[in-house]
Amino acid sequence: MIKRIDHIGVVVNDIEEALKVYQQALGLTLAKVQERPDQAVTIAFLPTGESEIELVQPVTNDSGVAKFLQKRGEGIHHICLEVDDIEKTLAELQSKGLQLIDETPRTGPEGERFAFIHPKSAHGVLIELYEYPK
Amino acid sequence: MIKRIDHIGVVVNDIEEALKVYQQALGLTLAKVQERPDQAVTIAFLPTGESEIELVQPVTNDSGVAKFLQKRGEGIHHICLEVDDIEKTLAELQSKGLQLIDETPRTGPEGERFAFIHPKSAHGVLIELYEYPK
Repeated sequence: MIKRIDHIGVVVNDIEEALKVYQQALGLTLAKVQERPDQAVTIAFLPTGESEIELVQPVTNDSGVAKFLQKRGEGIHHICLEVDDIEKTLAELQSKGLQLIDETPRTGPEGERFAFIHPKSAHGVLIELYEYPK
Repeated sequence: MIKRIDHIGVVVNDIEEALKVYQQALGLTLAKVQERPDQAVTIAFLPTGESEIELVQPVTNDSGVAKFLQKRGEGIHHICLEVDDIEKTLAELQSKGLQLIDETPRTGPEGERFAFIHPKSAHGVLIELYEYPK
């Protein structure tokens, strides 16, 4: 059902500053920096084994990510798990009484489908699920 | 230098309750539950691809993990990255001015050596480094 950790999302104030730690000091490779206007963020992708660390910088003050940053400060925002069949997983979670942020998957720029589980239902962890196009 | 995400540590109030979500609803496999009196915690290990999700329950009220739970509530506590050569990595981080919690590695029950980077130096993320015995 769950294949791997796709990525860990880390919210930062300034990607350039954060890359001094994650790229220059820790030695991770920077694969790309991508603007995601649909989510009002810029993301730096740093492959780490079969997963990625994503540095996420808000570009407006009113998104969910921007509010998280204002309230909690920089740090881990969410973990994303790759699943085989996102609709089956969401149905299973709902049948067990978990609260979902997205009851049906949204679609990202590369055709991936994604949905978030509410952290109240996952012991304080914001979990994103990803299904890649077959 | 960094090989993969070894694990993500999630602090929870009660492992049995958390397993209802992570094992029963999400379908992750429970590999083992281990008491770690040296860190005053019990840990449930859930392999996830090449990484693990670890559910960490404090067993006293005065450990660092217990205080994190009292202050912040349940949620992601740290991420652990596997490195080839922990001493080389720590030296590199110090040369770049990062603050370390452990300037020299500690040794775990299976011979793994580990050290923590201070979250102030990693944009709010508590990062653990692991080197496995060769």
